Amino acid sequence: MSRRWSLQEVAQHDTSSSCWVIIRTKVYDVTTFLSVHPGGADIILRHAGLDVTVEYESIHQPHTLERSLPAESYMGDLNSVAAHRLAQEHALRRGMSDEFCMENNCRKPPIDRVLNLRVMEEAAKSVMSSRAWDYYSSGSDDEITLCENMRAFSRFFFMPRAMMPVSNCDISTTILGFKSSIPVFISGAAGARLGHPLGEANITRGAGRTGIIQMVSSNASLSYAEIAASRISDAQALFFQLYKHTDALAETRIHEVESLGYNAIFLTVDAIVSGFRVREIRDSFVPQGTERASEQTQTPVWHANVSSNVPRAPTTSSRTDEEVVKPTITIATVVKPVDRDMSWERTIPWLRMVSRLPIVIKGIQTVEDAVLAADAGVDGIVVSNHGGRQLEFSLPPIEVLYKIRKQRPDVFGKLEVYLDGGVRRGTDVVKALCLGARAVGLGRPFLFAQSAYGEEGVVQVVRILEREILTTMRLLGASTLKDLEPSLVERVDWQPRYKL
Amino acid sequence: MSRRWSLQEVAQHDTSSSCWVIIRTKVYDVTTFLSVHPGGADIILRHAGLDVTVEYESIHQPHTLERSLPAESYMGDLNSVAAHRLAQEHALRRGMSDEFCMENNCRKPPIDRVLNLRVMEEAAKSVMSSRAWDYYSSGSDDEITLCENMRAFSRFFFMPRAMMPVSNCDISTTILGFKSSIPVFISGAAGARLGHPLGEANITRGAGRTGIIQMVSSNASLSYAEIAASRISDAQALFFQLYKHTDALAETRIHEVESLGYNAIFLTVDAIVSGFRVREIRDSFVPQGTERASEQTQTPVWHANVSSNVPRAPTTSSRTDEEVVKPTITIATVVKPVDRDMSWERTIPWLRMVSRLPIVIKGIQTVEDAVLAADAGVDGIVVSNHGGRQLEFSLPPIEVLYKIRKQRPDVFGKLEVYLDGGVRRGTDVVKALCLGARAVGLGRPFLFAQSAYGEEGVVQVVRILEREILTTMRLLGASTLKDLEPSLVERVDWQPRYKL
Amino acid sequence: MSRRWSLQEVAQHDTSSSCWVIIRTKVYDVTTFLSVHPGGADIILRHAGLDVTVEYESIHQPHTLERSLPAESYMGDLNSVAAHRLAQEHALRRGMSDEFCMENNCRKPPIDRVLNLRVMEEAAKSVMSSRAWDYYSSGSDDEITLCENMRAFSRFFFMPRAMMPVSNCDISTTILGFKSSIPVFISGAAGARLGHPLGEANITRGAGRTGIIQMVSSNASLSYAEIAASRISDAQALFFQLYKHTDALAETRIHEVESLGYNAIFLTVDAIVSGFRVREIRDSFVPQGTERASEQTQTPVWHANVSSNVPRAPTTSSRTDEEVVKPTITIATVVKPVDRDMSWERTIPWLRMVSRLPIVIKGIQTVEDAVLAADAGVDGIVVSNHGGRQLEFSLPPIEVLYKIRKQRPDVFGKLEVYLDGGVRRGTDVVKALCLGARAVGLGRPFLFAQSAYGEEGVVQVVRILEREILTTMRLLGASTLKDLEPSLVERVDWQPRYKL
Amino acid sequence: MSRRWSLQEVAQHDTSSSCWVIIRTKVYDVTTFLSVHPGGADIILRHAGLDVTVEYESIHQPHTLERSLPAESYMGDLNSVAAHRLAQEHALRRGMSDEFCMENNCRKPPIDRVLNLRVMEEAAKSVMSSRAWDYYSSGSDDEITLCENMRAFSRFFFMPRAMMPVSNCDISTTILGFKSSIPVFISGAAGARLGHPLGEANITRGAGRTGIIQMVSSNASLSYAEIAASRISDAQALFFQLYKHTDALAETRIHEVESLGYNAIFLTVDAIVSGFRVREIRDSFVPQGTERASEQTQTPVWHANVSSNVPRAPTTSSRTDEEVVKPTITIATVVKPVDRDMSWERTIPWLRMVSRLPIVIKGIQTVEDAVLAADAGVDGIVVSNHGGRQLEFSLPPIEVLYKIRKQRPDVFGKLEVYLDGGVRRGTDVVKALCLGARAVGLGRPFLFAQSAYGEEGVVQVVRILEREILTTMRLLGASTLKDLEPSLVERVDWQPRYKL
Repeated sequence: MSRRWSLQEVAQHDTSSSCWVIIRTKVYDVTTFLSVHPGGADIILRHAGLDVTVEYESIHQPHTLERSLPAESYMGDLNSVAAHRLAQEHALRRGMSDEFCMENNCRKPPIDRVLNLRVMEEAAKSVMSSRAWDYYSSGSDDEITLCENMRAFSRFFFMPRAMMPVSNCDISTTILGFKSSIPVFISGAAGARLGHPLGEANITRGAGRTGIIQMVSSNASLSYAEIAASRISDAQALFFQLYKHTDALAETRIHEVESLGYNAIFLTVDAIVSGFRVREIRDSFVPQGTERASEQTQTPVWHANVSSNVPRAPTTSSRTDEEVVKPTITIATVVKPVDRDMSWERTIPWLRMVSRLPIVIKGIQTVEDAVLAADAGVDGIVVSNHGGRQLEFSLPPIEVLYKIRKQRPDVFGKLEVYLDGGVRRGTDVVKALCLGARAVGLGRPFLFAQSAYGEEGVVQVVRILEREILTTMRLLGASTLKDLEPSLVERVDWQPRYKL
Repeated sequence: MSRRWSLQEVAQHDTSSSCWVIIRTKVYDVTTFLSVHPGGADIILRHAGLDVTVEYESIHQPHTLERSLPAESYMGDLNSVAAHRLAQEHALRRGMSDEFCMENNCRKPPIDRVLNLRVMEEAAKSVMSSRAWDYYSSGSDDEITLCENMRAFSRFFFMPRAMMPVSNCDISTTILGFKSSIPVFISGAAGARLGHPLGEANITRGAGRTGIIQMVSSNASLSYAEIAASRISDAQALFFQLYKHTDALAETRIHEVESLGYNAIFLTVDAIVSGFRVREIRDSFVPQGTERASEQTQTPVWHANVSSNVPRAPTTSSRTDEEVVKPTITIATVVKPVDRDMSWERTIPWLRMVSRLPIVIKGIQTVEDAVLAADAGVDGIVVSNHGGRQLEFSLPPIEVLYKIRKQRPDVFGKLEVYLDGGVRRGTDVVKALCLGARAVGLGRPFLFAQSAYGEEGVVQVVRILEREILTTMRLLGASTLKDLEPSLVERVDWQPRYKL
Repeated sequence: MSRRWSLQEVAQHDTSSSCWVIIRTKVYDVTTFLSVHPGGADIILRHAGLDVTVEYESIHQPHTLERSLPAESYMGDLNSVAAHRLAQEHALRRGMSDEFCMENNCRKPPIDRVLNLRVMEEAAKSVMSSRAWDYYSSGSDDEITLCENMRAFSRFFFMPRAMMPVSNCDISTTILGFKSSIPVFISGAAGARLGHPLGEANITRGAGRTGIIQMVSSNASLSYAEIAASRISDAQALFFQLYKHTDALAETRIHEVESLGYNAIFLTVDAIVSGFRVREIRDSFVPQGTERASEQTQTPVWHANVSSNVPRAPTTSSRTDEEVVKPTITIATVVKPVDRDMSWERTIPWLRMVSRLPIVIKGIQTVEDAVLAADAGVDGIVVSNHGGRQLEFSLPPIEVLYKIRKQRPDVFGKLEVYLDGGVRRGTDVVKALCLGARAVGLGRPFLFAQSAYGEEGVVQVVRILEREILTTMRLLGASTLKDLEPSLVERVDWQPRYKL
Repeated sequence: MSRRWSLQEVAQHDTSSSCWVIIRTKVYDVTTFLSVHPGGADIILRHAGLDVTVEYESIHQPHTLERSLPAESYMGDLNSVAAHRLAQEHALRRGMSDEFCMENNCRKPPIDRVLNLRVMEEAAKSVMSSRAWDYYSSGSDDEITLCENMRAFSRFFFMPRAMMPVSNCDISTTILGFKSSIPVFISGAAGARLGHPLGEANITRGAGRTGIIQMVSSNASLSYAEIAASRISDAQALFFQLYKHTDALAETRIHEVESLGYNAIFLTVDAIVSGFRVREIRDSFVPQGTERASEQTQTPVWHANVSSNVPRAPTTSSRTDEEVVKPTITIATVVKPVDRDMSWERTIPWLRMVSRLPIVIKGIQTVEDAVLAADAGVDGIVVSNHGGRQLEFSLPPIEVLYKIRKQRPDVFGKLEVYLDGGVRRGTDVVKALCLGARAVGLGRPFLFAQSAYGEEGVVQVVRILEREILTTMRLLGASTLKDLEPSLVERVDWQPRYKL
């Protein structure tokens, strides 16, 4: 087991019958792991025989592989030549990245200049790698739903009341009974470490300091325990966004987060297969040669490594060390959930049996399903289309909320209704609350904020929203969230110029 | 008959009373053919006395002329000087074209990077001649219908259902009883050889390999027999798109395709005269001198050869060989059908008498005509406006389908309803199926695909659509095509930003 | 009377108590004429004491002044120095203009390349002076109505019928009983000589050759007699567009055109004051010095000469010959009509008394006024907002026609209804006819056509429209104009991308 | 008290327990004033220890501070070194500013070329400092309401009547019984001296000369007395726009303006907290060093001084004279009103008790509040959203007016209804009057006009509107304002291309 390997030797194990990978300087045989990998075998096979350190570390929680693999999978270390070559390689890649970021970090505005969430997004874009940017910002297909989610809010106008006493204006609330300083929570989003080395911990600490609640994704890039440990106090509430794979895996996870003190389960139902986000996919096409420590100048030759429909180009077993350094991976394929056969009849009762935490269904898009959720007795729903990352031509959540309000207002009395998707302004938050939402979630803005400014960015987002919500409430003539009612909002029949 | 001719001699036969043309090195007297040419006399007269090799070969099926002309029309060959000059000419034109294409072929992405049909279109544009591009991509007048066909789909949004078991998802179907792997067929489109030397055969083989059905245009650039011979097996279904000229000619054609094993007749009713596609027309204006092997530098002088309203510039009979090399032709004028007096009363019974194949009417644009078609007992209709190439300001087909669904849903029980025009995404396909279509046709995307990548391009289009349809179905909560029903789709009252 | 004058001497008569002007080399005292000038005294006073040859000749019919002035107004000729200076001046201005036009004329496409009216407009723009272009193409205020007139047509879509016999398709009609080869007439428009030296005669001859009818503006730049004399036969119909000033002047004019053989009176009611067309106005701001034959280089000093609200800059009586050459005038101010107190009760009976010609009211914009016109017993109405040149935010004529069709379809049985404004395509014509118009008028396209190509341009416009109307009719399934009915057209609820 | 101070000495008093400022060369201790400053303590504390001459003089009425402070606050003058340094500083800043303006003033068009209000705005932009421009032109958040206010007018079209006698057309009216030459008043707007040294006096004189009425803002940059003294006669009416702070302060102000001869109180109810105008805020971020008379070249370091959420960077007490010259201030924070607890029940009766002037409520945005205002017996309302500077997503005023017209037309009989926000054209004015407004207000256009041309600019705006209103009325067939009725206007269901 303590044999030393050359890159060439490892590279020969590049098939499903013998599949090895390199992480740091260690060599693993993952052949038996292929069939149980949540992200599917394909994504690993594409990197068979290669160094996957960067891909692995930017996505997985620490020790995921070690925990999943039997001890005998560890095949030993690289020899010194190979280790040195890869170290050079990593240094080069990190170096370029660091330089790039340093230069850009000078360009980003000081945080107190970040006056709204649009500026925050621009700041993030200026410091993030294009790959991370694309993963965070992309939507499915032509990104019509992504765009319409935001644009839809601009069709809702206010009908503010004059002469209402508003000097005392309270915008705190509870979500599932847990206190929140503003009617906003952080929606689950994967891979925070793509944008900032401290990842989800930035969000946890920022949420704790400002008194709002974070929903942690199943696909977080820190472990659930690390995130729980980042709380500013044990009283800080955390929600868990469950991507359900097998019953067993889900149960294990739920019990893990329960024991860590998480406070609710948000079952995601709008992502049973992954939307097709072309910018994300394209980033995985990497010109061979550009990422290598090759001494010879070489014209880049493009290779594809995504669509399972496309047969992989045959590779010779005589590849040199230079040739095998072939990175790239897409996150979408890794995080894809497994259970495509959830149902109201089976899944909710099972979940109630597995856990006593409050249950919220995330991804409701029709009036009918809102009613079914109420009938199923869950504690809440999130009207959401997964931020435009899943089904293209999903209705904007604010439109769905408006339909529920008009067709089945009784639903709002039966469970808590939340919304996420396209919220960028305090006015957006207030509109949703007028139509019946108890709180709204934001995902990307918090990812952007922690990417650009770490924990302080998260705090700044809350400060901005707080100011905007307060101003909007007062100018509406509302002094508590209870004053926000449907009559204060009107859906207009024209499309304002939405400047995005 | 074996006399040798100079270009000047041939050029003197440039009137309707004596009209000669050159194909390769052969000289034909087509005077008596003028009155029976399906494309009309004008288009030939514009080339009277000239070499028409390039025009002829890029459009017509092989031996069309020989089959149509009596033997005595062959007047002999060009003399060696004339033949040499034309050969130089052809080489020059081909050469420029080849160079252009080679250079561009390097620029087009590898096929596995073609992730959606928009990219496929761009790839095709980068390798096609501008003339072929214009013929394929143009629409009539201001191309408003062309654009709206696509844009209309973006006003239809989904109302997906959560918690539906979809691990097994079957998207195969039958069209007129013939199996199709996905609910998509290839709509008839002329002139595939304009984009690729193998022409329609690319499409036939691609369709065969992926299990979908091709509709072959009357104006295909390969013979119907050549196309039939390109099938991957005798069991592969083919549909025939009939442009009806005289009864006799139509009958001959129908019997020909019947005997070749074609499986249905799609009678085209939306093209009794040709729409005016300005880009196509403009391409036929060629500067004299730029396409000639002239030794003297000459300022290009523009000449028009399109509108029959515009009297042709008088030509002297003393033209030299240099002057008579005047190519250019528009396809639109060639393919224009003749029978402008079809009627429900006469044409359908006649067609039933002539053939026992299933009959589908292609080009239905109103609820009334959908009902009339059902009453006439045909087997199907294609809701279509000919891809925006005919009547400008035709309603987008998805809008017409929506009207039929709302006003006369009984029609869907009486015949199979298809749609073509503007379909570019799996979401488009699924929307049409939700509203009642059994399958949808795509024309241009397949032409583009075979132009850029030949047969593999056609396969790739099917793979893309398959993936997109499957993803859309599952995210909608539908596991079979039968689950696609009107309640899953909503027409919204705003116009999304459609990024084309 | 035969005294010779210097420019300085004439220039001293620059007040309302002594107002002289120079035309060619003749000097006139127009003091007594000031109060009766249809265009008002202001416009003349702004040129008092100056040479007005260019302004006068590009706008007025020949001999207008001589006919209006008593013989004693002629004060004699310029002296030779003054005449020579002005001749130089004119030559310079003409020369620049000629050179400019010659250069541009090379750029305009050959007429048979002008495939639609948009291209015609571009061709005209490329050869016209910017002043003429601005006069023809401008609309009032922000040109919203100008733009919406055209854009409105794009909201009307066709519902074409299949399987209708259309091999014989007749698009000729009658207008007020006079034959027209297509359902189109030429709407009255002033100042054709601004665009082409032969002016309105181009239009008259083009109309005659193609069998359509011209409406001649009161403000034509040729005399009514010259226009009548340009007809290709005495049988060619002409309509007269009456801008009514005083009853007496109107009566004189009507009797003049009656005796010249004009066939109908189109009374203009939407231009009792002039719209404010900013591009036209701006062209009248001319930098002093740039248009002068000055020997010294001089920084241009801007002077305004338009708004009557703005007091004119005081001028010294010691102006030199150089200083007094100060041209510029706006046509809008010249052609403004006078009678602002027309009424249904008074004006129509008076007009019937004055003339036995058919009477059409031009400028109807409401259902109510269409009904009043029918009640008043006139022979026809033109639904029109003066091509967007008058009241900004007038409804597009096709929208007004649609309202009449829906609210008072009986109107179409009582008089002939025409429309003008925004018609640029055969589809536009057919849409209007489907909704009940008997014919539609086009103004600017004919002005543009004659500016670019003279008489042949006018013919080409008719040929284009003929082709477009025929194609549209056949593809609609209509073989006569009677077949065009409301059910063939639908107003859609979205705004197509109108590419202007 | 006559001690002389260095800049360093003054700079040490930079806390809330000892807060000094410099105005001209005088030093004041404003510590006790902090708690009563209408703009709040923060804004002063940010300048504690510094020279505030420029900030103070461009915003405040003269002697505001002296009147508010006890005599003992005056701490003496600067010493000669300090005074000299600041004088240099001021000269430098003024100089740059002057140079900039002189250069730009050459570029602005002569006033008689300013043919509409859009051109006036451009002219102003070309001569104003960017800070003044931003203050005048900005709106809250994404400036959607700012933009929609104007754009909304373009959805209202006219239905003009033909054949109506309009030679006599009278557009004068009364507002609250006071004569107005056109149905337009000048809406209150703060800080006219930002744009022009003579400030509000330009507006007062321009209004007087043209016979319209000015509404003077509580936050005018001249004293109410100076403005009153600028009237062209004692008969010239003035309205007072009241931002209500404490009852006592409001009462004092009201009695002051009453005694000065002001004629009505416009109580502002849509600005109880300030909207967030990002351009205004951003202008307050000034790079340290760029505004200093520093001898050393220094990289600018950005500092924030706006959001109260952002803790101020700690400052050392050892700052040198150079370091303490740190200007910048935002007007928004200064003018924020105080009373956030106004109510119909309390505030209107109190106001009636305090004053016998007519009372108008400015900032009504719903039908309900229009009715409440009528019930409360006030004399008028201004339908307004504060020009898009306050609540983002307020409905455009013309839309609110349209709703009142449709739902509660009785309101127009009970009080006078005005409108402001987005009015830029005579057509806008006439549309509002057709829907029931008695007059409309314009704010920014008058600020722009006086910034570019002083008093003459104000006159020119009135002349432009007068011409546009007259033309619109006549072309509508209306000869008095009473003729303007709802039937002349229609709200269309499409969005015209509004060219802004």
